Amino acid sequence: PDTDARARTEAREPTLTKPAGSLGRLEELACWLATWQGRHPPALDRIRCVVFAGNHGVATRGVSVYPPEVTHQMVANFQAGGAAVNQLCRANGADLAVIPLDLDRPTAPFDEAPAMTEAEVLEALNAGLTLDLSGVDALIVGEMGIGNTTAAAALSQALFGGTAVDWVGRGTGLDDNGLARKRAVVSAAIARHGDALRDPLEALRRVGGRELAAMAGGALAARHARVPVFMDGFICSAALAVWQAMDSHGLDHCLAAHVSMEPGHQRLLAALGKRPLMTLDMRLGEGSGALTCLGLLRSAVACHVGMATFAEAGVTDKDPA
Amino acid sequence: PDTDARARTEAREPTLTKPAGSLGRLEELACWLATWQGRHPPALDRIRCVVFAGNHGVATRGVSVYPPEVTHQMVANFQAGGAAVNQLCRANGADLAVIPLDLDRPTAPFDEAPAMTEAEVLEALNAGLTLDLSGVDALIVGEMGIGNTTAAAALSQALFGGTAVDWVGRGTGLDDNGLARKRAVVSAAIARHGDALRDPLEALRRVGGRELAAMAGGALAARHARVPVFMDGFICSAALAVWQAMDSHGLDHCLAAHVSMEPGHQRLLAALGKRPLMTLDMRLGEGSGALTCLGLLRSAVACHVGMATFAEAGVTDKDPA
Repeated sequence: PDTDARARTEAREPTLTKPAGSLGRLEELACWLATWQGRHPPALDRIRCVVFAGNHGVATRGVSVYPPEVTHQMVANFQAGGAAVNQLCRANGADLAVIPLDLDRPTAPFDEAPAMTEAEVLEALNAGLTLDLSGVDALIVGEMGIGNTTAAAALSQALFGGTAVDWVGRGTGLDDNGLARKRAVVSAAIARHGDALRDPLEALRRVGGRELAAMAGGALAARHARVPVFMDGFICSAALAVWQAMDSHGLDHCLAAHVSMEPGHQRLLAALGKRPLMTLDMRLGEGSGALTCLGLLRSAVACHVGMATFAEAGVTDKDPA
Repeated sequence: PDTDARARTEAREPTLTKPAGSLGRLEELACWLATWQGRHPPALDRIRCVVFAGNHGVATRGVSVYPPEVTHQMVANFQAGGAAVNQLCRANGADLAVIPLDLDRPTAPFDEAPAMTEAEVLEALNAGLTLDLSGVDALIVGEMGIGNTTAAAALSQALFGGTAVDWVGRGTGLDDNGLARKRAVVSAAIARHGDALRDPLEALRRVGGRELAAMAGGALAARHARVPVFMDGFICSAALAVWQAMDSHGLDHCLAAHVSMEPGHQRLLAALGKRPLMTLDMRLGEGSGALTCLGLLRSAVACHVGMATFAEAGVTDKDPA
């Protein structure tokens, strides 16, 4: 954190022509952005959205209403410009990169075996760690992967305890039988891997997935590059939670853009101590929730940077300095 | 409401390449916009923000931490481009008009007399009714007026009952003594005008203000021009509530963009049956909350209009038609 940039934001804010605090969270956001971009004023001109895609062995366990080939089909849809993420990037001024991760080689079904070998999880982490973030003002990491809410639920339980009932939801639309199967898979995974899950990175390897590891890698790369991260939904938040499980300040550069309808997400954000910016009943992934918040984030920057001060505008302050 | 445009939105939505319902409120918004713009697809290219300013006789009663001349000063700030509303219009792609309403002639202090004569309230309503809305896709009405949360509280109590404690908040930052004075002024006004407040338009005349009447006029003009309205905070919502008090569907073309920190706003939105899109702890007025939501609203349109269908993208649907 850049305490000098933070101090300069805090000094400017009360001079602007509005009642103190009247922009609410917009004021906090301007300060947080300056702190984690390491500069004053903050800027949000160039936003990069990276969508990682992966396939999951557990998708064969009846935990999704969609067949696994949809991961591949949706990647083609991203590349052709037809998905929600494409429209949201265009409408909100973000550039998009799509990175499929070994789609023809799903992870192992993690109720039976570790999802990834050590080499595999490192390769996936590296897909995020090596993102080119030069000139980028903020990063959004999104995902696509049939079965990945099951991985997010298992990883959340591994990192924060509780039971499968706490973390498992209906994902893309499971019925009651599907929900029961998904809970059983997560419970079996937690039992199968036992104490090995106490190490957050080992939990990521054993019950995560390639796109989760890549998102975690991206968030770490962003920290080092002084690029704030706007977190998307449950899967993104579960992946990034690995860093907070290792260090209580590990996600201080990450903002919860929204809280999704997937019930585990609300619990997860509470565990992370993060208050989401928006509650829009979304549950799509692809970075969609974070992209939808960009106008609001740019509004925060625009007010902090562009407003006149009381002195400049000749407006009488409540308590003139 | 255009039920044909609504039906066409509802027919397209489930064909798009995402799990049904996964865009949550964005899906509802696309449908609501089509219904009240009377066309499919809906569009949000041209957004007009109109800020009305007025002065209030009750401002002499110690109900604000700012002196009344700040209304005039802030209008100059709007015209010079230095206020929050200017930055938010620029950042979110809205055009701005500022309409000062007889600033040198404050309304009468409404704890003693009707705020406006019949001629005055009609003139103020007309400032909104005569807005040029041709080519406009959505309207935001904002306000500036030292003392106007007192008017909004009195009008809310007149329309929806309760007590001054329910509706009166700290506005731009009153201390406990100021809050007590403001409550007393509102209680005195309600007692003074008595049964005359049962008629919503008469309540607007007696305890409202010019900018409130103008905002109400603007919302009515928008209804007739098939222009949806994005409602801002407490003062805007109280002004527009006049139409719902007269007709339970009178604000169906208006959306609650946000809920402000002013405690009466939450109560008012509940009385209006409106769920706000965002909770950002804002309490500035000027249309600021509604402008901050524009990115989200454009996201809804972009997804509905631009996404590929399952058939177009060759993606396997959960339940192929």
